[in-house]
Amino acid sequence: MNRKSKVAFSTADDNRDLGFGSVVARESRQRLLNRDGSFNVTRGGFGFWPSLNLYHTLITTSWLKFFAVVTSSYLVLNAIFAVAYSLCGPEALNGGGTELGILRTFFFSIQTFATIGYGHINPVGLVANVIVTFESLFGLLWLALATGLVFARFSRPTAKIAFSERAVIAPYRGITAFEFRIANERKNQIIELEAKVLFSHFIEEKGMRTRRFDLLSLERSKVSFFPLNWTVVHPIDGASPLSGRSEDNLRALEAEFLILLTGIDETFSQTVHARSSYRWDEIEWNAKFGSMYNQPLNNSELTIDMRRLHVIEKLRGK
Amino acid sequence: MNRKSKVAFSTADDNRDLGFGSVVARESRQRLLNRDGSFNVTRGGFGFWPSLNLYHTLITTSWLKFFAVVTSSYLVLNAIFAVAYSLCGPEALNGGGTELGILRTFFFSIQTFATIGYGHINPVGLVANVIVTFESLFGLLWLALATGLVFARFSRPTAKIAFSERAVIAPYRGITAFEFRIANERKNQIIELEAKVLFSHFIEEKGMRTRRFDLLSLERSKVSFFPLNWTVVHPIDGASPLSGRSEDNLRALEAEFLILLTGIDETFSQTVHARSSYRWDEIEWNAKFGSMYNQPLNNSELTIDMRRLHVIEKLRGK
Amino acid sequence: MNRKSKVAFSTADDNRDLGFGSVVARESRQRLLNRDGSFNVTRGGFGFWPSLNLYHTLITTSWLKFFAVVTSSYLVLNAIFAVAYSLCGPEALNGGGTELGILRTFFFSIQTFATIGYGHINPVGLVANVIVTFESLFGLLWLALATGLVFARFSRPTAKIAFSERAVIAPYRGITAFEFRIANERKNQIIELEAKVLFSHFIEEKGMRTRRFDLLSLERSKVSFFPLNWTVVHPIDGASPLSGRSEDNLRALEAEFLILLTGIDETFSQTVHARSSYRWDEIEWNAKFGSMYNQPLNNSELTIDMRRLHVIEKLRGK
Amino acid sequence: MNRKSKVAFSTADDNRDLGFGSVVARESRQRLLNRDGSFNVTRGGFGFWPSLNLYHTLITTSWLKFFAVVTSSYLVLNAIFAVAYSLCGPEALNGGGTELGILRTFFFSIQTFATIGYGHINPVGLVANVIVTFESLFGLLWLALATGLVFARFSRPTAKIAFSERAVIAPYRGITAFEFRIANERKNQIIELEAKVLFSHFIEEKGMRTRRFDLLSLERSKVSFFPLNWTVVHPIDGASPLSGRSEDNLRALEAEFLILLTGIDETFSQTVHARSSYRWDEIEWNAKFGSMYNQPLNNSELTIDMRRLHVIEKLRGK
Repeated sequence: MNRKSKVAFSTADDNRDLGFGSVVARESRQRLLNRDGSFNVTRGGFGFWPSLNLYHTLITTSWLKFFAVVTSSYLVLNAIFAVAYSLCGPEALNGGGTELGILRTFFFSIQTFATIGYGHINPVGLVANVIVTFESLFGLLWLALATGLVFARFSRPTAKIAFSERAVIAPYRGITAFEFRIANERKNQIIELEAKVLFSHFIEEKGMRTRRFDLLSLERSKVSFFPLNWTVVHPIDGASPLSGRSEDNLRALEAEFLILLTGIDETFSQTVHARSSYRWDEIEWNAKFGSMYNQPLNNSELTIDMRRLHVIEKLRGK
Repeated sequence: MNRKSKVAFSTADDNRDLGFGSVVARESRQRLLNRDGSFNVTRGGFGFWPSLNLYHTLITTSWLKFFAVVTSSYLVLNAIFAVAYSLCGPEALNGGGTELGILRTFFFSIQTFATIGYGHINPVGLVANVIVTFESLFGLLWLALATGLVFARFSRPTAKIAFSERAVIAPYRGITAFEFRIANERKNQIIELEAKVLFSHFIEEKGMRTRRFDLLSLERSKVSFFPLNWTVVHPIDGASPLSGRSEDNLRALEAEFLILLTGIDETFSQTVHARSSYRWDEIEWNAKFGSMYNQPLNNSELTIDMRRLHVIEKLRGK
Repeated sequence: MNRKSKVAFSTADDNRDLGFGSVVARESRQRLLNRDGSFNVTRGGFGFWPSLNLYHTLITTSWLKFFAVVTSSYLVLNAIFAVAYSLCGPEALNGGGTELGILRTFFFSIQTFATIGYGHINPVGLVANVIVTFESLFGLLWLALATGLVFARFSRPTAKIAFSERAVIAPYRGITAFEFRIANERKNQIIELEAKVLFSHFIEEKGMRTRRFDLLSLERSKVSFFPLNWTVVHPIDGASPLSGRSEDNLRALEAEFLILLTGIDETFSQTVHARSSYRWDEIEWNAKFGSMYNQPLNNSELTIDMRRLHVIEKLRGK
Repeated sequence: MNRKSKVAFSTADDNRDLGFGSVVARESRQRLLNRDGSFNVTRGGFGFWPSLNLYHTLITTSWLKFFAVVTSSYLVLNAIFAVAYSLCGPEALNGGGTELGILRTFFFSIQTFATIGYGHINPVGLVANVIVTFESLFGLLWLALATGLVFARFSRPTAKIAFSERAVIAPYRGITAFEFRIANERKNQIIELEAKVLFSHFIEEKGMRTRRFDLLSLERSKVSFFPLNWTVVHPIDGASPLSGRSEDNLRALEAEFLILLTGIDETFSQTVHARSSYRWDEIEWNAKFGSMYNQPLNNSELTIDMRRLHVIEKLRGK
């Protein structure tokens, strides 16, 4: 083998392979990417701790679930300390009356853990004071962890790109084009937004049905600003792997269009990524996207209406 | 269509399109970028929650407004808990005298929420203690959120570039040049600063008035350091789209110069972005920028006076 | 010397030198990289403070050790303040009973440092109150530092790549290939993963045994996604520095394969790095990696079993 | 002017200009960069608030000064609240004895601001309770700000590169070379380290003494790893602007070598920058750097001694 073939090895297909591996390419008939950008594959067989992965979960879960976990941990930790105080006997705590019964130690624990310390209940004797010492440390560290987690959640890239529900195959400068539309769902600004579209479909290779990936060329693959919306356009010219394909054809090929977006969230200058995919049955043929613009009055600010992101207008005839 | 045209599709105009979309290009007669770098367009039609976008607002608003929101939330939350204690009846809280009347529960709430807990007022009975339990949790989480937000505000890129109030068309090496001047308004150092200048103007295309964008070549498009000031210069040579234009001409074209700056804030090694624009009526013809330097005494440190950033000297004759 | 040689100087070997320096290259017979990616060299002779480097240690150590340090500092600081209160005499603190003896000041310190302040023990007189003033400040700053450290630990890139225990020399498209396998040990997604493999071995140069580094060409050097596992493959073609080498040969050369991975952790859009190395005695000859996939049922999600990452199947004959 | 000259404009000198501007280039005779990497120029004429720039100062100042500012603000804020309580008259606070006199309100303020709340002193009446309400809010926000600042300080890139005190002009492969040596002063790992060396000197241009910058080609401009030390080498071949220069010559030219380093701190995957400069009088002629290595025993770990970074060995003859 000569030097030239060596170079070929290191660069061939680099842009086309998605890293799913050959088994996925060959054996899975499922869509690869879900609409929300998550992968349709699962890793199993982790050990217990890596699977738990509490931190990653607490960072990426919803705020509702996050606060539920935080509240539960608060109550459970105080219940544990309440049991500890109870084990010291009734004389370990002074004051607080008797009407609370068994819960007296729990509320004292709350007053200690949260560092309130009203003092109408207070610890007596060595053991109770030692428990207070450690409970106060736990309380402070719990607060430090909660604060750290809250901020870790805040500091995640906040960009959220909305994709049109369906893609279209629309007339375009005498030919047709594969198009989908995106908009920024948040108030932040995204700049230097770049799109990559891959066309996944099955071919017969040596008698085996194998998935093949083609990078589709775009009318424009990058925009400097993204203040409103962007319609990403792949012109179906003679060189396009979509050239001459019909709707039935794409169904037979189990076609899937994988979308990868990269941009910069200006609020924190963070690079952000978004993914989605359109399957053959999520494409509208012979249609075009409707305008999202509110007709600007003379010299007034131009506006778009985000609710019209998904509006598709069916075209007559062909 | 052949392979060559495919490549052409994917790269054509990539540097010139700004991502405003064709409607903006055609129908809006407004300036595109405001002087402060914000976009002169608006997205509408978000759902309620995305519009609210409290987090983004709290991060990007002024410190004054931020503290106003924090203070309000503190008072309102305590008022809510005060009502809760009041609903438990006067025996739910012990102590604190009667002279405060209805406000006794509010001040007790403050002492609990802020985890002070003097104890001269303290909770009695199950319900009051349960409310204390949740108020203490709310207090801690409120602190965690406030701390997280404060830090999120701190961790935003702090660079602020000052642009000269007006740009000039000045004599330059036998020809003329479009020039504007920038300086770093903060004490941090910005390095690897890069400038991009786009010339937006209207042309007639197929009988339609359409906006056109031209990237202007710069004498120098990047500086490694930016310790003082930088005058960005576009020489108006024969290849420049400004070649042969007069002041009246630029007015007729509704000319706007869009400025994009990218650099690295050294304090946190963050990439920072700045934008601004000059319209045809913000350009001084036949003028040049005055010196910002204080004449250095022998062997003394060189200094510039930031107040002179905007100083323009009108030139006589033409 | 002419212009051309100048260019040669500035670019030659840039991809092959690893920055270990000539002495390491020549004199050390140790492996360069440990399996966990740490370097097999040590810097000494720092001053006391740079060596201490408490911050870096607290950020990178295990959570267990981190909490041990935090707890120790909490107890030690309170012990110091307890001594300070004791030095003020028994009248400096009011209340708390006598049954705690010398520990009364310690528990009062805890109640102050953690800002609990039950109040059944309280400070009397100027000196005790001044100590309380500073202890409260210390307590708040200790909490600020602990919170800052907790978050600094949270905000570190969390990616962890698992490498197969051994590499293999496996049959590959009519020739053989050097292969190893990696998988993502965490639940986060890594994208844009890139691999670099360097072959380090000793050669005789001017009668001196010197280490030489060769960059190995890969079948694929980058994958866009990394949802499951990736087998990195260097085909041993005629141009490969491994061409014609036997197991004995690699031992004689003290061969070591240095692996460098770079990718993007999607959770925080952080660039992450991983390193490892395989020595000649960590390579299995005439073997291949076993499948990690659970056979997917019709239309079910595809899964891999992480425990099979290290499974190697020996091949018969040669 | 034709298209070609346009291109020339936008790229000419981009690598050589440092952004100091022409006045600095012409009129300042001072060194441009100090040894610690700070610029030898000053911006003045800011308004009051931008000059104050408290945040940037609190982030970049030493820990000692930072804690001094934090402590002062704590004491001053409490003094202000103490005055407020005093203005309410002696009945506003209940308890605490009379022996503290005027300081009673100060210590009560501390107990409130730090949320200790022993309760042996407590607020009476509407005004005192309202002040407590706002003081508790101030205390919590003060803690949030302190925590935010502490973490902002922690999250700054921590890399610190040590430069050899002097550079050398040393024999190198039959010619000579300009060399300096660097090492990582911290325990973190820096990877992908890149060096840029600029040679600044004065030339006569149109009868004016003007500074000129030349980028020096390096034997190696980038190293993948930086576990020990790195000697950066510019070979003085025929194409070098140093070719044929003597020590007297460099003095006459007021030569200064500006060093720019960029790398990645692996702890947080942050890009880090370092700058320094060597003036003509900080270069040792006909000398070479001494070894920093401790002779490795057989099979033991290789070590370097950081204290030997600056060791230069004078060469005889020449």
